[in-house]
Amino acid sequence: MPRIPVTDPSDPRLDDVRNLNASDNRPDLPGGKGLVIAEGPLVVSRLVESRFPLRCLVGFPAKLDSYDADHGLPDGVPIYEVSRETLAEVAGFDMHRGLLAVAGRAGEASISDILRTARTICVLEGVGDHENIGAIFRNAAGLGVDAVLFGAGCADPLYRRVVRVSMGHVLRTPYAHLEGTRTTWQRSLDQLREAGFRLVSMTPGGDTTLTEAMAGADKVAILMGGEGPGLTEHAMRATDVRAAIPMAPGTDSLNVATSAAVAFYERQRSL
Amino acid sequence: MPRIPVTDPSDPRLDDVRNLNASDNRPDLPGGKGLVIAEGPLVVSRLVESRFPLRCLVGFPAKLDSYDADHGLPDGVPIYEVSRETLAEVAGFDMHRGLLAVAGRAGEASISDILRTARTICVLEGVGDHENIGAIFRNAAGLGVDAVLFGAGCADPLYRRVVRVSMGHVLRTPYAHLEGTRTTWQRSLDQLREAGFRLVSMTPGGDTTLTEAMAGADKVAILMGGEGPGLTEHAMRATDVRAAIPMAPGTDSLNVATSAAVAFYERQRSL
Repeated sequence: MPRIPVTDPSDPRLDDVRNLNASDNRPDLPGGKGLVIAEGPLVVSRLVESRFPLRCLVGFPAKLDSYDADHGLPDGVPIYEVSRETLAEVAGFDMHRGLLAVAGRAGEASISDILRTARTICVLEGVGDHENIGAIFRNAAGLGVDAVLFGAGCADPLYRRVVRVSMGHVLRTPYAHLEGTRTTWQRSLDQLREAGFRLVSMTPGGDTTLTEAMAGADKVAILMGGEGPGLTEHAMRATDVRAAIPMAPGTDSLNVATSAAVAFYERQRSL
Repeated sequence: MPRIPVTDPSDPRLDDVRNLNASDNRPDLPGGKGLVIAEGPLVVSRLVESRFPLRCLVGFPAKLDSYDADHGLPDGVPIYEVSRETLAEVAGFDMHRGLLAVAGRAGEASISDILRTARTICVLEGVGDHENIGAIFRNAAGLGVDAVLFGAGCADPLYRRVVRVSMGHVLRTPYAHLEGTRTTWQRSLDQLREAGFRLVSMTPGGDTTLTEAMAGADKVAILMGGEGPGLTEHAMRATDVRAAIPMAPGTDSLNVATSAAVAFYERQRSL
């Protein structure tokens, strides 16, 4: 497929990457175009290989050359060649990485499929920070977590920043949203228990070590709450055990994605 | 001590917090004024209690009231009361936290003191990212690491962003720079071995599990390299063991501060 040079920043063929930082009309907002945007060769290659329907690639000529040499440019979608100045004007800031891929959204994984095949699941409640969601997906993929389930109050996992911070793993690791509101979603944890999962709440006030919490479990679901408030009491009451990472006196809890990595590590260690 | 209202953004009494984001003349550059800047009540309180010589506090009236109620305003230094608009013009951006403290630099800890008293040390090589340095100090403090030693190629630990991301722990946890250049600093690891430390390199190519690497050690030094290149072969050759966090197939290594947290956790677990 021939590359298509575009020099006019107002060209509508570049609308998929227009105003990437705008709070109201950015193309990755779920209520708007709801696109999925990958930046840089590694994450672009993961979007290209993913289940998300690819729409286009946009890049500087040299970045497209280099991607073509390493991965091969994908077939069947337009490849727009732009200058750094044109892309900066379209995106709204200087995109020095110079390579973007855009896809449409795809449906989530099926919860019953996840519960049938996964052995280690991460369940999030109230994690509203995109960077934390991205880091949790990166850590989950690296440390052998099979799927992520969202309770209430979590940020959109397909926001551009999540895709980037996750190193594209949010495009690969199955995830799904559990049903219910902030006060009712916890009931859906019953189906995890019925599927044989031990439910482990991660909380600084936990009375069990991580090692004890993971020991001897065939299937484990690790629950993490947002920075600050942590898990709701309602969620913790629906779990089997409350585990803490021992903290030195006079220190605060760890970042939520860091705590998650420690829990995922302990789970892998216990297998 | 009475608070001092300052309304003129050009007032030289505010020079300690002027142009906080400027790359050339920001006040926390070691080559320039070399100040230490804390933001927000928690980190400000940690700077006030630290060994760093306090110079002033700057804040919105309501933020100073609230800090005074929670911690008491410190004696012996000027407390400048400013409006949001004035501070934004002085600092160069909108500082919505509205509370800053400034101190001078203080000398580092003595390496011989560290080696005499510490049982767990983190040694960094080539960690050039301020956010990673800050996160490593936060994780070290939370997970019982006694001190941080810097090999060559690391970013300045007193940069404003490090202080913030570390939650102020860089002001509390002892640290020092080991002598030598990029190719010679590794020799100074001998003194750690002589002091009874087991030296553990963290590397994705390691042939030992973390659990094995930590087992039975009275004193441990955990070596971490920068994102991407990791530890130099020269540094790893000076250590006793090369440990890896087992990664799932097809995934990259974890972020350096996240890897450090997992290693620190395993060290605490093994004690």
